[in-house]
Formats: sequence, structure tokens, C-alpha cells
Amino acid sequence: MDCGTSGGVWGLDRGYCLMIGGENEQVQHLDPIFKTIAPGEGSAEPTPGLSAADTTAVHGYLHCGPNGAGHFVKMVHNGIEYGMMAAIGEGLSIIKHADVGLHPQEESDAETTPLRDPWAYQYEINVADVAEVWRRGSVISSWLIDLIADAFAKDPNLDAFAGRVSDSGEGRWTVLAAVEEGVPASIITASLYERFESRGLGDFTDKILSAMRSEFGGHAEKPAAGSAG
Amino acid sequence: MDCGTSGGVWGLDRGYCLMIGGENEQVQHLDPIFKTIAPGEGSAEPTPGLSAADTTAVHGYLHCGPNGAGHFVKMVHNGIEYGMMAAIGEGLSIIKHADVGLHPQEESDAETTPLRDPWAYQYEINVADVAEVWRRGSVISSWLIDLIADAFAKDPNLDAFAGRVSDSGEGRWTVLAAVEEGVPASIITASLYERFESRGLGDFTDKILSAMRSEFGGHAEKPAAGSAG
Amino acid sequence: MDCGTSGGVWGLDRGYCLMIGGENEQVQHLDPIFKTIAPGEGSAEPTPGLSAADTTAVHGYLHCGPNGAGHFVKMVHNGIEYGMMAAIGEGLSIIKHADVGLHPQEESDAETTPLRDPWAYQYEINVADVAEVWRRGSVISSWLIDLIADAFAKDPNLDAFAGRVSDSGEGRWTVLAAVEEGVPASIITASLYERFESRGLGDFTDKILSAMRSEFGGHAEKPAAGSAG
Amino acid sequence: MDCGTSGGVWGLDRGYCLMIGGENEQVQHLDPIFKTIAPGEGSAEPTPGLSAADTTAVHGYLHCGPNGAGHFVKMVHNGIEYGMMAAIGEGLSIIKHADVGLHPQEESDAETTPLRDPWAYQYEINVADVAEVWRRGSVISSWLIDLIADAFAKDPNLDAFAGRVSDSGEGRWTVLAAVEEGVPASIITASLYERFESRGLGDFTDKILSAMRSEFGGHAEKPAAGSAG
Repeated sequence: MDCGTSGGVWGLDRGYCLMIGGENEQVQHLDPIFKTIAPGEGSAEPTPGLSAADTTAVHGYLHCGPNGAGHFVKMVHNGIEYGMMAAIGEGLSIIKHADVGLHPQEESDAETTPLRDPWAYQYEINVADVAEVWRRGSVISSWLIDLIADAFAKDPNLDAFAGRVSDSGEGRWTVLAAVEEGVPASIITASLYERFESRGLGDFTDKILSAMRSEFGGHAEKPAAGSAG
Repeated sequence: MDCGTSGGVWGLDRGYCLMIGGENEQVQHLDPIFKTIAPGEGSAEPTPGLSAADTTAVHGYLHCGPNGAGHFVKMVHNGIEYGMMAAIGEGLSIIKHADVGLHPQEESDAETTPLRDPWAYQYEINVADVAEVWRRGSVISSWLIDLIADAFAKDPNLDAFAGRVSDSGEGRWTVLAAVEEGVPASIITASLYERFESRGLGDFTDKILSAMRSEFGGHAEKPAAGSAG
Repeated sequence: MDCGTSGGVWGLDRGYCLMIGGENEQVQHLDPIFKTIAPGEGSAEPTPGLSAADTTAVHGYLHCGPNGAGHFVKMVHNGIEYGMMAAIGEGLSIIKHADVGLHPQEESDAETTPLRDPWAYQYEINVADVAEVWRRGSVISSWLIDLIADAFAKDPNLDAFAGRVSDSGEGRWTVLAAVEEGVPASIITASLYERFESRGLGDFTDKILSAMRSEFGGHAEKPAAGSAG
Repeated sequence: MDCGTSGGVWGLDRGYCLMIGGENEQVQHLDPIFKTIAPGEGSAEPTPGLSAADTTAVHGYLHCGPNGAGHFVKMVHNGIEYGMMAAIGEGLSIIKHADVGLHPQEESDAETTPLRDPWAYQYEINVADVAEVWRRGSVISSWLIDLIADAFAKDPNLDAFAGRVSDSGEGRWTVLAAVEEGVPASIITASLYERFESRGLGDFTDKILSAMRSEFGGHAEKPAAGSAG
């Protein structure tokens, strides 16, 4: 048998769902245990027309299929998590940088596009407050939005983080499964690669691009912003 | 002044957050109205350390900045929504197709990769139940998961839908903003392009690819599965 | 030993490079054969500073490493090929559709963004001629551009193709290698998924998106363009 | 009138194609000049069935359409260039890192996936030689491959480059055009965002991801490899 779970370090307070794989008999035998530790019916509004008589999912645990099925579902859960996190991260970053028109453009040469419409990017928006307001009634309300609102409330510029994002495997395996199955998974894969990029794993690729630009155009690399001297 | 909102057709029951742009004086003047129609403090658990004295976001409405800022934030909200939806869609599709090893491979020639490990893809998993179990305690619990669980409860194979996904503009504008600002937005952009693909807008590109394959390899296109005769 | 090759059905006329894996002794033993069938030094301008004394690559064949290394390099070659093909396909499609401002917008409702600047998209550009001109002196001049120019010269609208693009495995394996190695491969992976999409493999994902849109917004799917009645 | 060109700093030796926009009369009037400076028929093998009587593209110059059409085509040319460059860069990086199984995994904890099949990634492949061999007869033979072979011949580890890749505007504008036209352009867009990432423009997004991981899982960020102490 196998059993994946999700809920993070908050599981004791908030509950954690169970994704189970195994033979029918064994899983049925352990049903009282699963039912006891699962979050339970009250942990979310009922889905109309669905009752505990239809599926144990209503209690927060599910026999997904034979051995391995539980962790397969948990693995994909994490793949989705990567994608949702990245969507939220990108969006908040676009909002954070809605002030680019207010800043003098650091670079202004043949290597750099000037901002076309600086007047349109003069918003200084408080991303912490935006995350908080999205928690109430928006279509994207979710536990991940709750968490980032909490993080911003504690550390408004996220100074505690350098932005080196680990990946602990499930995202990679979800991508491998998608490729094997022939299912396009652009979002989940892009979110995996974004984590690779955050750890500098694209550096050799980038050197190749700079080398080609130097070859065909005589373009020299620009130094990092702020490193002029 | 401008005011974007999110909450969909369920807003009356569930509340809908307000993202407001305008001058301070005018926005302050209308504060009682915003406070009245906003979802209110009780609509989500409080974020630790954050109170109504800190920000109106706690009530579900926010003065984001000058005129236009409200719709800017609402626009990006929808961009995030595209990305979260696509992550969920891809993940559930990977779970749905975890049974590919059970099906005879329709095609088996030099044009088609055989499945390497058919034994690993023999799970017939009920995606409706998976969506339901993720509503309870999982890291990806969210209103979007609630909604897809509801949709599957009503129509287990989603037969009511052909899969032609519209885009009503906010996703495009979010991508344009990301490009102008110089913020990488791989996930949101991929989710926009996935919608384009769903409506056949990549067809000319695909014909070019088939034409090249025919040129260099003498590869003929294969007919659509099921169209053999 | 293993030996991958590239050059397609044109190899007899144009030569085909050899990517070889195996033990030193065996590969050396067969060197005269490889040298005989390889394209040879004259098949491309010399790279300044590089001579046949430096590497057999100058003759068009290469001992890449131990057994398997030849096909590894050939596999990645095809991954690059996918990406280059897709870049060309997308670009020519953007040029083909530079006339969207000339056409009445088929749809004009809350489901559809109107074109913002129709005046800017009124170019009717002959893509066949564009492909041909790029063959002469452009930075993207390449055999793939030669081939698409040839395809357009024979069939200006590529009517012989429906746009169902096969993938014969190497692209998938390149992506698996990238994920295992931790190398971000956004382009090669996107080009693989584009092929999946071209064959309808994203349909279940798309149905999920439409179902969610229907749930939160009451959005009904629009029929395919041209199917109104 | 407008006239874009491509060919880089090598144009004098190698020729440079001309992409022209303007009214018929004016363009015709200047035809002798374009014909004189264009690369000419001899600069590439003829496309079968296509002669100078069909199109001036055979000479290496093209009247693409009214004013602006020339630069539109040139802009998209550069978008394609971004995508082709990135495909080559990614592929060579995958080959470069085919030795990961030989290196002790620097990190081995709950934050890091171990390499599943270290035995499969023990190739130490000379990427300079690979680039050179692909110049002779391969499907991806192209001027960009010529250039990177040249760069590697001069600087085998590309030590002259830090990997901060500029974008000078045409890639951005190509993406904006694709979005406006409704043409999916996954590859070209991904190559633009990869350049943004190379310059650290994804940092705020990455901090958000690390913050969320810390929130739900208690995951602390790992220090950069090599910075332990």
C-alpha cells in the first residue's frame, strides 16, 4: 500500500488529505483509520449533489487505485502546486514592477529597448495588500494566496529570501509522466524550469546565447546593473 | 475612478473583492459604499498580525493607486487565474491519462514513439473524486478546485464542453504588461497560448512543421486517430 | 558501438554527419569507413583556426564518447531541430497573420477581445517569398529555411498538410534528459508540446478550462468559427 | 519607405538580405540599388522551380508590402533568431551536462531530488566538436551553428561571457504582435523570457516561491552551491 498526503506543516490545525493506493481488501480494512485522521466533511463546503455515500473524498481521503496510485495522485498534486505558485509569483511580480515608468531607465543603448509607454507604468502598488484583498471573494482565492499574504504581512519585501527555489522531485516526475503519456503540460513544465533558472542552471545556455550575439553582431555583454564603474 | 472586481456570477452569495483606482479624496469619499458591498472581514480567516486598522484589504476592498490601478490589478488577477486554471487542467489530464498503458497503442510505426513503460501507466483514476479530495486540506485547495469538483459532479466526462477556450482580453493584456516591464511570465503566457491552440490558432504553424518533416525526412502526415478506413 | 546520423532523405546528395559512440580501439579501427562516408571537409566553409588535425568533426564525423554517446548527441540534435522548426513555423505564422486588421472580426462579444490596433495589422505578405529571401545572407539562414522555401514554392498554402505533427521519440527523450540533468529546456519542451497540441492531445485539459469558465462566469463555449447558423 | 536587413557585422563578406516596405512606384524606382547591394542569386543554391522571374527574393531582396512591412518582416526574423539560438543553446547545454552522473551530487537532502539513473549520465562530450560536426550535412546546419562552432573554437568554455543576454527589442515586439494577432508563439516567447531570466529579472517571482515554500512546508532556502562554510 501507499499513501500520499498534502497539507504541509499546518496539517495538524488544518487537516491534510490522504491519497491512497492499494488492493481493495487492505484499503477497506484500514478505512476506520483513514476516516479518523482525514480532515472530515466539515473541512470544506459540500459540493452540491455529492455526499459521503458517493465517495470518501467528501471526508478528505480517497482510494485512488492499486498500489502506487496514491503517490501518483500526490505527485501530480505537487506539479499543479508548482504551476499555481508560479502563476501567483509572476502576477505579483508584474504588479510590483508596474512602476517601471517612474524609474530612469538604467540602460539606454543599442543593446536595450527603451520602455515604449512610460506613462502607463507609474503605479506603486502595495503587493502585500493586493494578496490580502484577493483572499476575499476573488476567483483565485486559495490557500496559496493565504500563505503569500501571510508571508508579506511578516516580511513586506521578502528580504529573508534570495530566490533560489528548490525542487524536491515531484515536479520533475510529473513532467516525465506528462511526456510519457503524451499530455501537453506547458504550465507545469515552465514552472519547473523557472526553478532551475532561479538556481543558475541555465548559465551555460546563456553563455552560448551571448557568444552567438557577439559573433553575428559584435554585441558585447553588458555588465550587471549597478556594477558600472 | 475605476473599480475592478472578481467573484464571478457567485458574487452575491460569496462576496466579490474590489480593486479600486482613483484620487485619494474621491476614493475616501466613497469608502462607506465600498465597505458596504465588500465581502467583509468574516469572509476569510484573518491573516495573523493584520487587522482592519492596517488595510481595507481585510474587508475585501483596496485602493490600489491612481486612476487605472484598480483595473491593472484586476487584469493581473485574471492572468493569474489563467495560469492556475491551466495548472489544474494539465494535472487532472495527466491523472486521467495515467491509464495509457492499458490501451493498445493505436499507432506503431516510425512516426510514433512506443510507450516505454506501459506497466507504469495502468491506473484508472476517478478524476472527479480526486478534485473533491483536494478540496480538503491540500496545499492546492482553492475556489477553482471547488469549481472543477462541482463541474465533474454534474458531468463526469465534461461532455458538455468541446474544449474551445475563449480568452476575453485580460490574459493578453497581462502578457503585454509583462513584456513591457521586462518581467518573465512563462506560466501566464503559456496558459494564454494554450487557449489559442484550443481554438485552432496554431494550425498554420503546424502545417509548416509537417511540411518541413515531409521535406527532410519524407515523413507523411498520419491521419487523425479513428479516421482510418 | 552506436552511430547516429543526420541528413534526412537528402543524405546521398548533401552528405550526412555521423555521431559515433564506442571504445577508442574499435572506433579507430573503423575510422577509414567513417572518413569515407562522411560529408568531408569541403561540405562547409572551414571554421577559422580549426583543421582536420584538431578533430575529425571537420570531416563530418565525430567520436562523441563511449557506447551510447553517439545516439545521445543525435537525440539532442533532433531536440534542437524541433525547436528551430517551431521558431520558424511561429515566425512565418505571425507574418501570415499580419493581415488580421483587414478582416472583419468574426466574433465581437464579451467572450472575445477586439483587436486593439487594426490599422497596424494590414499587411498581406507573401510568406513563400519571405522564406526565400531569408535564404540569402540572413542570420537565420539554414537548411530548414531552405526546406520550407522549397515546400512553399511547391505548395503556396501548404494544402497538402492538415497540421497533425508527429513526434518520433527523440524530442521526448531530449526533454527527459534535460529534466534529469536539471537543465532548463523551455524551447525544446514547448516545441514538443506544440506537436502534442497539434494532434488534439490537450483536449481534456481544454474541456476542464471551459468547464471552470462556465462555473465561475457562466461563460458558454463559443462554436467554432464558421459554424454559426 | 523602410528597409530592414539581416546579416550582422559579416554582411560585407557574406551579403545581407533586404526586407523592404513602401509604395510600388518608389520601390520599383530604387530597384537597381537594391539589386546591386543584395547578396545575389549565387549566394545560395537555387530553390527548385523558382527563378528570378518569379521573385526578387532569389536575389536576396524583397518588397514585402506597404510602408512598415519591411521592418515587420525583419522584426519577426529576429524573433525566429531568438528561438533558434535558444534551441541550440539548450541542446548544447544538455550535451555539456551529460556528465552529471560522474559528479558527486552536491546536495542530498529533502530539498533535492537525487539523480535517478547516474549510470546514464556519464558522457564527457566535447561540445565544440559537436557544434563543428553538425555544420556538415545535419538537418540543423545553419549560420548560427557555424557561429557557435567558431566561438567554441576560440574560447572552449566561453569564459569571455557571463551569460547576461541582452534583448534589443525585436523579440519583445514579435511577442506583442503574436498576442495581438492571436497566434500562439510559445517558442519565441520562451526565448525572450529566458533572456529576462538571464539578467535576474525573475528574482521577485522567485522570492515569492521561496516564501510560499517556507510557509507551507517550513522549507528553508538552500545556499548557493559552493557557498557552504
